[in-house]
Amino acid sequence: MYDLLIHNAWVVTVNAACDVIPDGMIGIHGDVIAHIGPKRPDVPPPAARETIDAGKGIVLPGLVNAHTHLPMTVFRGMADDLPLQAWLEDHIFPAEAAHITPHTVHWGTLLGCAEMLLAGITTCCDGYFFEDAVARAAAMTGIRAILGHGVIDFPAPGVPDPAENIRTATTFVRQWKNRSPLITPSIFCHSPYTCSDKTLARAKAAAVDEGVLFQIHVAETREETTRYDDRTPNGSLTARLARLELLDADTLLVHGVWLSPADIERIAQNACGIAHCPESNMKLATGIAPVTAFMQAGIPVGIGTDGCASNNNQDLLREMDITAKLHKVAGGDPTAMPAPQVMAMATRDGARAIGLGDQIGSIEKGKQADLVILDSTHPAMCPIYNPVSQAVYAGSGDVVRDTIVAGRVRVRNRTLVDGNIDEIMRQVRAIGRAIGKP
Amino acid sequence: MYDLLIHNAWVVTVNAACDVIPDGMIGIHGDVIAHIGPKRPDVPPPAARETIDAGKGIVLPGLVNAHTHLPMTVFRGMADDLPLQAWLEDHIFPAEAAHITPHTVHWGTLLGCAEMLLAGITTCCDGYFFEDAVARAAAMTGIRAILGHGVIDFPAPGVPDPAENIRTATTFVRQWKNRSPLITPSIFCHSPYTCSDKTLARAKAAAVDEGVLFQIHVAETREETTRYDDRTPNGSLTARLARLELLDADTLLVHGVWLSPADIERIAQNACGIAHCPESNMKLATGIAPVTAFMQAGIPVGIGTDGCASNNNQDLLREMDITAKLHKVAGGDPTAMPAPQVMAMATRDGARAIGLGDQIGSIEKGKQADLVILDSTHPAMCPIYNPVSQAVYAGSGDVVRDTIVAGRVRVRNRTLVDGNIDEIMRQVRAIGRAIGKP
Repeated sequence: MYDLLIHNAWVVTVNAACDVIPDGMIGIHGDVIAHIGPKRPDVPPPAARETIDAGKGIVLPGLVNAHTHLPMTVFRGMADDLPLQAWLEDHIFPAEAAHITPHTVHWGTLLGCAEMLLAGITTCCDGYFFEDAVARAAAMTGIRAILGHGVIDFPAPGVPDPAENIRTATTFVRQWKNRSPLITPSIFCHSPYTCSDKTLARAKAAAVDEGVLFQIHVAETREETTRYDDRTPNGSLTARLARLELLDADTLLVHGVWLSPADIERIAQNACGIAHCPESNMKLATGIAPVTAFMQAGIPVGIGTDGCASNNNQDLLREMDITAKLHKVAGGDPTAMPAPQVMAMATRDGARAIGLGDQIGSIEKGKQADLVILDSTHPAMCPIYNPVSQAVYAGSGDVVRDTIVAGRVRVRNRTLVDGNIDEIMRQVRAIGRAIGKP
Repeated sequence: MYDLLIHNAWVVTVNAACDVIPDGMIGIHGDVIAHIGPKRPDVPPPAARETIDAGKGIVLPGLVNAHTHLPMTVFRGMADDLPLQAWLEDHIFPAEAAHITPHTVHWGTLLGCAEMLLAGITTCCDGYFFEDAVARAAAMTGIRAILGHGVIDFPAPGVPDPAENIRTATTFVRQWKNRSPLITPSIFCHSPYTCSDKTLARAKAAAVDEGVLFQIHVAETREETTRYDDRTPNGSLTARLARLELLDADTLLVHGVWLSPADIERIAQNACGIAHCPESNMKLATGIAPVTAFMQAGIPVGIGTDGCASNNNQDLLREMDITAKLHKVAGGDPTAMPAPQVMAMATRDGARAIGLGDQIGSIEKGKQADLVILDSTHPAMCPIYNPVSQAVYAGSGDVVRDTIVAGRVRVRNRTLVDGNIDEIMRQVRAIGRAIGKP
């Protein structure tokens, strides 16, 4: 007898063979997938404590949002259409200095997690400040999250003295290690141009000591690359990062828009993952990451929405659609970045990139029961010829009907099961009004 | 006393001054906007036969989808990730020959219109075959539509003899002129490479005689441009079209990806409109249209979703987001294609491009009451700093709560008021199963 049974579904497994089961069912014991297979003709579905009829909808592995800044949800739409430096220096940094507190972090995180769960995102990989408040809020929502405390060589929210940045991050990691089955702590260095070599090396060493993921923005803008070259005149960005021993399988590089072929080769050799954030890169006009080259080199590449100040939503299904279309038009090849590849990025490959590939990212026996059911009654889901391309090209977060994390239903019939979304939005609106006042 | 009053709204007028009224109200008499202005403090809203509280949501002019092929909704997701010629010649053309009938056109159009109304699209500009069946179905849904009967120099659905193509299109126009206040007939030539010069000139002459919009795909692919050059060795594509007297204010050019600066200048001088279809152009990898140059030349540019075989949904709010982001990254400039410009494209400029600029496209006294209310309870609508960029960058069709066409509520609280969506989807699923069988 299963705890939860899902049936009457197109099951998109995203297993190694990319199997799709047209009339499939999934049995769950506790938080684990115990069975997956086709419905047996003329046999009623097996007994379960709870049974969900997917209504011939598409079931996907829970989506993995490989790069977020959850508290920045409170800045959604605060500053758009601006030059990059003005956006960052005149709007984002001052707003962070003035308004990022444990209170705003708490409510911004709750709204971000609610938005993501409603959009079928079961796992996110975050980096920000006051990450303890992020972790407390995220844990309340039941989302799976890797949460990295920020490290930067400037005064930051909650870390007024940069000399304390690595100690603060390490304290956070120790506080959250083995505390909640769904929360995994991490260390997040902002970037190679906002951290000294010493900070980078010490932060990575701390992550290695603690056995956690190390995250860092790299090569987001062309200008950054110039600066790196100044600092490492005889080498590339990644030569510098390799010398500092930053590159290994427990490092996630974010953006990577301006990585060179030599960089890509070095990253592949060192088994790092990459988080690709196409909407953020497009909106800030930083460029188009060479994702096809990443994949050809064998790098696991996930997709991230980035924070709400640069997107401005947290909808990975839309991000998947844009990923496919962007790389098709950029390469002049409509066969580039096909739907199954994008589906893998948003699930299995993203899970690998953030170090959870053995637990999540596909619908396979023994993996965590993180699942999404798309709503077959949404007009965009009609007709269905191929469920993978249907999800990628016609889907959106709003087509999600149910979201299940670790065997627990967190969104049912488009509604959050836990948490008071009205109260969360009321609080974030109040924060927005306070921020919006000059 | 108004027939309909909308209050408690951010009103995004898209008038010439792009006024936004933070706590606005709109009074409607019959199908016309009779009043627009701020709420008066301490005065209850005026009397009306029906009052809609927008719940502090954003109200936009009804969205104008400047290019659709409604019946192709039945082909949604049938053939993705393919080379362009294989997609067209091995999949789309054979499927059209085998499966496009008045029956499939009817149900495909009903689904397409339902999808669009639910996504806040109040007007679409369509071109296809069996357009009489399209018109009958569209009229049932209450959407506003310009519907062009297709003209092509090959056997086409419903027009087995190409010698009859212009007569068939003209008959359609005469049947639908002044028949329904919301349906405006038109003539739609497929393209300069699938129609002879004689056909192009005769089709446009018929459109001029009937006083209707002439639509044509132009310069969608680079290969087409080469063919045109062969046919007009001493001139550009638009020189040929100008010689055939195709270019005037009642002509809508669709795509225009490969238009040269000389083409753009000629189009502007002749006051044609352009429909930009970024998602279709990206998915088929045909290129990035020089939209900024179109606008600098003063051409009215609308946004179209294109048909469901090349997108694969009909969500203009998503198309707006992608329009802004695509042109930012293509130009390397985050200030390019700002949200207010994209909002104008999807409303006022699109209306001008399709010849309805005096009736729709902005929330102004005397214009048709085509309106969209975004749902302030959707997480992506929280917080709101700037309602225009909120709609463009955080919105999607699924954020639409209510859709009003000509003063009549067609979508209320995310649900179609008229029409049985379950039955429409059941029929389209059955059509899809028939098409999907080898």
